Amino acid sequence: MKVRRSDRLIDMTRYLLERPHQLVSLTFFSERYESAKSSISEDLTILKRTFRTRGTGLLETVPGAAGGARFIPYITKNEASQFVDDMITALSEESRFLPGGYVYMSDLLGRPNVLRQVGRIVATQYLHETVDAVMTVATKGIPIAQGVAESLNVPFVIVRHDSQITEGSTVSVNYVSGSSQRIEKMALSTRSLKPGSRVLIVDDFMKGGGTIGGMQSLVKEFNSTVVGVAVFAEGAFEGTSKVPDYTSLLKIDATTDHVEVTPGNFADQIYTPDRMSELKK
Amino acid sequence: MKVRRSDRLIDMTRYLLERPHQLVSLTFFSERYESAKSSISEDLTILKRTFRTRGTGLLETVPGAAGGARFIPYITKNEASQFVDDMITALSEESRFLPGGYVYMSDLLGRPNVLRQVGRIVATQYLHETVDAVMTVATKGIPIAQGVAESLNVPFVIVRHDSQITEGSTVSVNYVSGSSQRIEKMALSTRSLKPGSRVLIVDDFMKGGGTIGGMQSLVKEFNSTVVGVAVFAEGAFEGTSKVPDYTSLLKIDATTDHVEVTPGNFADQIYTPDRMSELKK
Repeated sequence: MKVRRSDRLIDMTRYLLERPHQLVSLTFFSERYESAKSSISEDLTILKRTFRTRGTGLLETVPGAAGGARFIPYITKNEASQFVDDMITALSEESRFLPGGYVYMSDLLGRPNVLRQVGRIVATQYLHETVDAVMTVATKGIPIAQGVAESLNVPFVIVRHDSQITEGSTVSVNYVSGSSQRIEKMALSTRSLKPGSRVLIVDDFMKGGGTIGGMQSLVKEFNSTVVGVAVFAEGAFEGTSKVPDYTSLLKIDATTDHVEVTPGNFADQIYTPDRMSELKK
Repeated sequence: MKVRRSDRLIDMTRYLLERPHQLVSLTFFSERYESAKSSISEDLTILKRTFRTRGTGLLETVPGAAGGARFIPYITKNEASQFVDDMITALSEESRFLPGGYVYMSDLLGRPNVLRQVGRIVATQYLHETVDAVMTVATKGIPIAQGVAESLNVPFVIVRHDSQITEGSTVSVNYVSGSSQRIEKMALSTRSLKPGSRVLIVDDFMKGGGTIGGMQSLVKEFNSTVVGVAVFAEGAFEGTSKVPDYTSLLKIDATTDHVEVTPGNFADQIYTPDRMSELKK
């Protein structure tokens, strides 16, 4: 039974949204809906226009018989800034302030809609890079890594402080913890990352950058490359950070009596949709 | 500018898919697209039909002026079984077998598409329950919890073995680890779960059920209720499990020389779409 245009548009939207960055061929859609490739091409033009108008993302269409479409989710600078402002309002509530100049934020990082937006923002910042895997360290970076990995449609790997029997053989590195200045250890399963991978490092919080520096060493041990570092929040820090280049959504200054939350440098690296294809390496 | 039907269908699909279980009003859509409510109602009828035909989920429509639509994702028993069979094939590769009768599965639990399907399956199993929060224990349960929480559109909370300054005050319980028979401790931030919550417990792996038993005690400490327990894989276990009722996607029997992976009991609790509304309490 031939499928009507309205049904095709609905199902194609879902199908493409669930598979970011994956090229889906005209042939596949044509067979799925028992419809001519010319009709599918028209459908894709409509999808492209709506995705663009609504700020959903870019639908890249690849012409020719072997062609198809690839959905690249992004977030506009406006929507990203609005989201970061909402986070600042939430994190500035006094009930979140903890002894030692910390701010409670675990509840926010357990909300699917927050994690989706964080994922979209970080993915948009690194759209011009080829990313093979997202890396984070247990525990609180995991939900961020998963959100980013969903938006980029790549796997994420979890570095651990303890080594577990269920991880098999591991590669471990020592690093100097930025805050405590102690030597610590972190490990990653040898099975989890292919040599030659291009890795995006993410975490929930960064202060001196010691932990992230550790992950950078670990990436090198896997003969892989760090393409970027993105954190949800950075804390005020006196001295030289171990990580010179990174992006953050928020800055938390809790050195004085009160806590001040301000936007991080995220907006500098959010490109307009038009510039995306030219940026892609 | 009035929005065309095709554009409305595409954007409504995305909007509803991103907000499972949330009632979106006719008024909202009518204003968003500057279109009559009668047109929006027709759109929703088309969406409902396509979602059903394609096994995407149920679009519940609430009639009347205050009405709207709510998207309830589910997975069909066929698609769930197909996915579990794929997992069995992947996990039966000899290169995954680890000393001590363990199977390496961290890579699978770091793939967004695997986590989405696990989330859909577990969410479908507990569609007849009201769930306010998903609970898991660090580290490897987190991606599963996030996948399930996305499908149910509720927050997830992470129980930890160590207590961190960034969690604020915590409630902790002692429990007997099923495998080592040692007394261990787990803690949850008091800020993370409201009293009276209905909690779905999930984890990547269960053997004796000690860890999950600990989480059950913790839920009681928060004057909350456990509505179910779901694990990705259960290990063969001699003796009485501390958790009599649970669902699993996979059974891993690694007590002998070789590892055998078989389907868990998940299929018993996957209901057909027709039975869903009647089951909802």
